[in-house]
Amino acid sequence: MIRHTVVFKLKYPKESSEEIEFFEATSRLSSIPGVINFESLRQISKKNDFDYCLSMEFETSKAYEEYNQNDDHVRFVQTYWASYIESFLELDYELI
Amino acid sequence: MIRHTVVFKLKYPKESSEEIEFFEATSRLSSIPGVINFESLRQISKKNDFDYCLSMEFETSKAYEEYNQNDDHVRFVQTYWASYIESFLELDYELI
Repeated sequence: MIRHTVVFKLKYPKESSEEIEFFEATSRLSSIPGVINFESLRQISKKNDFDYCLSMEFETSKAYEEYNQNDDHVRFVQTYWASYIESFLELDYELI
Repeated sequence: MIRHTVVFKLKYPKESSEEIEFFEATSRLSSIPGVINFESLRQISKKNDFDYCLSMEFETSKAYEEYNQNDDHVRFVQTYWASYIESFLELDYELI
């Protein structure tokens, strides 16, 4: 199991139309083949500057690679990620 | 549900006796009242410098506060966290 997470801050204010549009687009990522346990999360610790996180799991590293190359994912990155994100950090995990 | 995570890098080499001792100590955190779904994770993305993550969940913010004040947790932080950790980032989540 690989858990892929991206914690981030948007350029747009909370509850703005851009924020709503962004999360509508992220929710469609959950339909990409191989994605399991997709979660949209609010980051609530005051010890960092991030507001949200997307978390998803893949059964194998091959499934994760295929997701990265999937057309819908590539289009999402080009259309939304590249222009809506102020800052982010990618963290990927495997159970020890 | 609150998911408390800390991603980190140890001061000591992988598979060193200090690393083994540290993870033995972290595993005992899972017995502290209120802690559910405790996970020890390896951080595998090359896009950041962290090696490991501890993840745990609490049913309520009260349970999370009690964990922070729990004697065994406080002792762990003083004995291990303060001296074994090179760098870390705390990220806490709620489902949207």
